[in-house]
Amino acid sequence: MRDLEELADRLRRFAQARDWEQFHTPKNLAMALAGEVGELLAELQWLTPEESSNVMDDPESAARLRSEVADVMIYLSRLADVLGIDLIDAAHAKLDQSDKRYAVETYRGSARKAPPLV
Amino acid sequence: MRDLEELADRLRRFAQARDWEQFHTPKNLAMALAGEVGELLAELQWLTPEESSNVMDDPESAARLRSEVADVMIYLSRLADVLGIDLIDAAHAKLDQSDKRYAVETYRGSARKAPPLV
Amino acid sequence: MRDLEELADRLRRFAQARDWEQFHTPKNLAMALAGEVGELLAELQWLTPEESSNVMDDPESAARLRSEVADVMIYLSRLADVLGIDLIDAAHAKLDQSDKRYAVETYRGSARKAPPLV
Amino acid sequence: MRDLEELADRLRRFAQARDWEQFHTPKNLAMALAGEVGELLAELQWLTPEESSNVMDDPESAARLRSEVADVMIYLSRLADVLGIDLIDAAHAKLDQSDKRYAVETYRGSARKAPPLV
Repeated sequence: MRDLEELADRLRRFAQARDWEQFHTPKNLAMALAGEVGELLAELQWLTPEESSNVMDDPESAARLRSEVADVMIYLSRLADVLGIDLIDAAHAKLDQSDKRYAVETYRGSARKAPPLV
Repeated sequence: MRDLEELADRLRRFAQARDWEQFHTPKNLAMALAGEVGELLAELQWLTPEESSNVMDDPESAARLRSEVADVMIYLSRLADVLGIDLIDAAHAKLDQSDKRYAVETYRGSARKAPPLV
Repeated sequence: MRDLEELADRLRRFAQARDWEQFHTPKNLAMALAGEVGELLAELQWLTPEESSNVMDDPESAARLRSEVADVMIYLSRLADVLGIDLIDAAHAKLDQSDKRYAVETYRGSARKAPPLV
Repeated sequence: MRDLEELADRLRRFAQARDWEQFHTPKNLAMALAGEVGELLAELQWLTPEESSNVMDDPESAARLRSEVADVMIYLSRLADVLGIDLIDAAHAKLDQSDKRYAVETYRGSARKAPPLV
């Protein structure tokens, strides 16, 4: 079983082994998360919408995207662990709100209102 | 079992029901992810390191943090689904590299080199 | 004359009058800058390239964009002031490098290589 | 005179000479801006508040900070030019609001309310 909990455990042990927990404040980890998202944006910034939709067709681009998305996941997982937040539970709690807030019949296909997830 | 796959499925169905898949290009989703990370930063930006470490002690702050972290998770999950990336596998692949790159004996407690995870 | 120096002065006095200089570390200001850029992204994230190019045609959108761009400018100005960096000089120094690095004849119209400014 | 207008002119000519204006939509430029802010955050993310306040004392750190701040300025200038926004005027308009919103006597030294600029 490779799941979120196992990933958080691995990151915790990684930091402990190097005595790096001292640097892993929520503030610092949120900055690192933002830095990694910046690198992800850089992979997509000059692409047309269509090019961005096909970005995984090219093996080199796919490898870079996979790497950047992984980095974001790693810092998000570490941050959530430090904060004591269950990522899956927290996401579903927000989506329960979204289900009520964005009724299907009202929002279907509407581009007038920016289409969010949350 | 509530796991990452179930979350991705829920997000996909949420978007399909509202005909919002047309907006969910990798480019757009990466921007939305970055926007949510910006909101997360805003919760932590004026705190001292110590205050950020204790941010979950206050129920109101904790609720806001939980909400912002959830939003980041939601867009990351949706982006990974659209790109066909397995978040857990991709994260472990990066950490396999980090294990080799940052040998425990060399990097232990070192603040000279910025302490990363990846 | 309303220039960058005058703006930096106004921000410095604004912070001094409220005893907020204590919060204006480079680290905190960079986070605030990133938070404001996140709000700017949120204005543009679901737009097509064409819609984004016409975003100033709608008075309400234009006002929001103007406001978000201003917020970014404000934190960038304040950060540069705290760091003692002249924004204009620093930008030209980078562009001097870009002039050499991206020769017109080599890069003209090329979309293969991501078209940067710096 | 080296001012904001001259910088915007130089960036416009730089893009025109390489036929890169086609890539410089507000959406793409905002993403590039966010990417550069991410690199700036990466320079500061593991520093203590005190270390971040002294970051310009080390010549190598100072050069990197100057370079990253310049990149942010460059994309902000280009974005504002494409949108037709005067950065200085827009910033002062926001600060006129802040002057009213954050009365000195109410907010002086207060850390309870997050100390903003805008």
